[in-house]
Amino acid sequence: MKDEHVFPVESLRQFSFGIFKKIGCSDNDANLATEVLLAADLRGIDSHGLARLSGYVRLWEANRINATPHIKIVHESPSTAVVDGDGGLGLVVAPKAMEIAIAKAKTAGTGWVAVKNSNHFGIAGYHTMMALQHDMIGWAMTNASPLVAPTFSVERLLGTNPISLAVPADKQPPFILDMATTTAANGKLEILQRKNKEAPLGWIQTKDGAPSANPHELKDGGALIPLGSDYEHGSHKGYGLGAMVDILSAVLSGANYGPWVPPFVAFLQPPADPVGEGIGHFLGAMRVDAFRPAEEFKKHMDNWITRFRAAKTIEGKEKVLIHGDPEREMSTQRKKEGIPLNPKVVEDLKDLGKKLGIAF
Amino acid sequence: MKDEHVFPVESLRQFSFGIFKKIGCSDNDANLATEVLLAADLRGIDSHGLARLSGYVRLWEANRINATPHIKIVHESPSTAVVDGDGGLGLVVAPKAMEIAIAKAKTAGTGWVAVKNSNHFGIAGYHTMMALQHDMIGWAMTNASPLVAPTFSVERLLGTNPISLAVPADKQPPFILDMATTTAANGKLEILQRKNKEAPLGWIQTKDGAPSANPHELKDGGALIPLGSDYEHGSHKGYGLGAMVDILSAVLSGANYGPWVPPFVAFLQPPADPVGEGIGHFLGAMRVDAFRPAEEFKKHMDNWITRFRAAKTIEGKEKVLIHGDPEREMSTQRKKEGIPLNPKVVEDLKDLGKKLGIAF
Repeated sequence: MKDEHVFPVESLRQFSFGIFKKIGCSDNDANLATEVLLAADLRGIDSHGLARLSGYVRLWEANRINATPHIKIVHESPSTAVVDGDGGLGLVVAPKAMEIAIAKAKTAGTGWVAVKNSNHFGIAGYHTMMALQHDMIGWAMTNASPLVAPTFSVERLLGTNPISLAVPADKQPPFILDMATTTAANGKLEILQRKNKEAPLGWIQTKDGAPSANPHELKDGGALIPLGSDYEHGSHKGYGLGAMVDILSAVLSGANYGPWVPPFVAFLQPPADPVGEGIGHFLGAMRVDAFRPAEEFKKHMDNWITRFRAAKTIEGKEKVLIHGDPEREMSTQRKKEGIPLNPKVVEDLKDLGKKLGIAF
Repeated sequence: MKDEHVFPVESLRQFSFGIFKKIGCSDNDANLATEVLLAADLRGIDSHGLARLSGYVRLWEANRINATPHIKIVHESPSTAVVDGDGGLGLVVAPKAMEIAIAKAKTAGTGWVAVKNSNHFGIAGYHTMMALQHDMIGWAMTNASPLVAPTFSVERLLGTNPISLAVPADKQPPFILDMATTTAANGKLEILQRKNKEAPLGWIQTKDGAPSANPHELKDGGALIPLGSDYEHGSHKGYGLGAMVDILSAVLSGANYGPWVPPFVAFLQPPADPVGEGIGHFLGAMRVDAFRPAEEFKKHMDNWITRFRAAKTIEGKEKVLIHGDPEREMSTQRKKEGIPLNPKVVEDLKDLGKKLGIAF
């Protein structure tokens, strides 16, 4: 877009690192949080990148994020653990929990870590991709602020609750699924808001549950709709997947679930009657060779990917998508050309820099 | 429906047991296969119940189902196994694989079993519900005959690839998700075909990828559409979930995947160039107390279920669904009143009974 400014990756990295240091993060944590945010910007998931930085700082100012968490295992078995994130940045807690899942998988074949007392963890795909270098399949889920109405409900009881799965291949790039369990993620609404455009019907409902095309509807008590758009087209399935993510991330870990999940924005207060601690994640790692030799598996993944990529398309459509391809292509391009940021985000980051004394 | 006949559960049980015995199953296996089929009929998933019995027999006649399989673990780690189903009925192979997952979970915290060389396994929910009595969360997935076109594809490369998750609660009934990763399952098309009704747009496409309302479209080379209905409404997410099921069930186990999955019907030949053995499943069991005390977890599940059940509804809608509720209510009713079968199914079962000398 013409009105976007493009920034070299390295300058954004330094800025983000500086901000996280200023709020008290260790070098390691500031670095880790920065890499998770940058991964989103590089992959084109702009809503989860540096655009969120000032929001994290506001939560820290409100004493709702702990910059020096003592992250620890509070319960475990050979293939499982529950991790207490101690109110830390999800950007820091989740990768550390994923390391535990990977370590468990090394000895037990698989590792599954439910996390409580955490915060927004950035893009789910960052965490699942950590498994790839170990020839493991990575899993990640998280619950989130309630913005989604279950089928037939006018109440917002679920977050956009994403599911990610990363699967290694051999010569082909990995298969990386990273999806909200809603028809459209919140980030897509934000884009429409900025462009002053309407949303397709099936994404949003009004506060009374009627179909709406207004991307600002959530401000008036409206809700996002689960994947499927309406009951006739399977929205109860999207709702079921969102529920699955909520249960595994939070009921299993001891975090808040459903409407009790604390909001991601500092100007909204968390519910006064929490049912758990913070928000919850569910992370997993499965060693491929706990099932079959990794080389054999990866060759078959190459065959799977090649066959699907070569599928005959509907006239006018260029190709059949392999999950992870568009984000990887974007990442390659942005590493070279830099990361475009929306003017409002640039303004916001400049203000943040001024406030904390870090030049943007 | 007026034209349906209602049969006592016990008489259907005896008939099904007799048929499976006739094709050479052991008492145990005939009993197990019967219970899996009956569970579908009881729960109202008629497409996966006794309606399928003659189809299994035809596959056995074509030497594509082994009635006396030697089911064995061919690879394992503390929390994983790959099971070779030896071409047996999925109805028998899957519950045995689930027992292995449960046994692994007892010692390792979780158990994950990928199955190859199997066949259609009935309803996924039967297998996940096996975990409940052990205070475990059950997982089940299976790939299936290719009837589904990925987003933008005219080729059918995936099955309806279901995902099921069963989660125990305390005083509330369990949460049981059991969903195809398509907008509508094939069984819903069969109902429309029998009633001579049109399908909603978004369920099916023609052989060229155009929207279609014709429930017979698959016979002309059309395809089912992944959950989401079209790209704008997230069908690439439904496609991603179907791909996840295919990869975990078959690439991980060594079964056939994508377009190589053998058809469920005897009149269609399996592909001449298989990439694995039979069809594949992925089954899992997670011990709740490998994460937190089971009583604590189940009380929170009660709270989760109670809150969602009490959600304020859209005007005119009676209630917000909890997954598993409709099927359990149907099951209670049918246990008392009997199971209604479509006249075509009754005719088919009578013919089957005559052929094998078992009175229906």
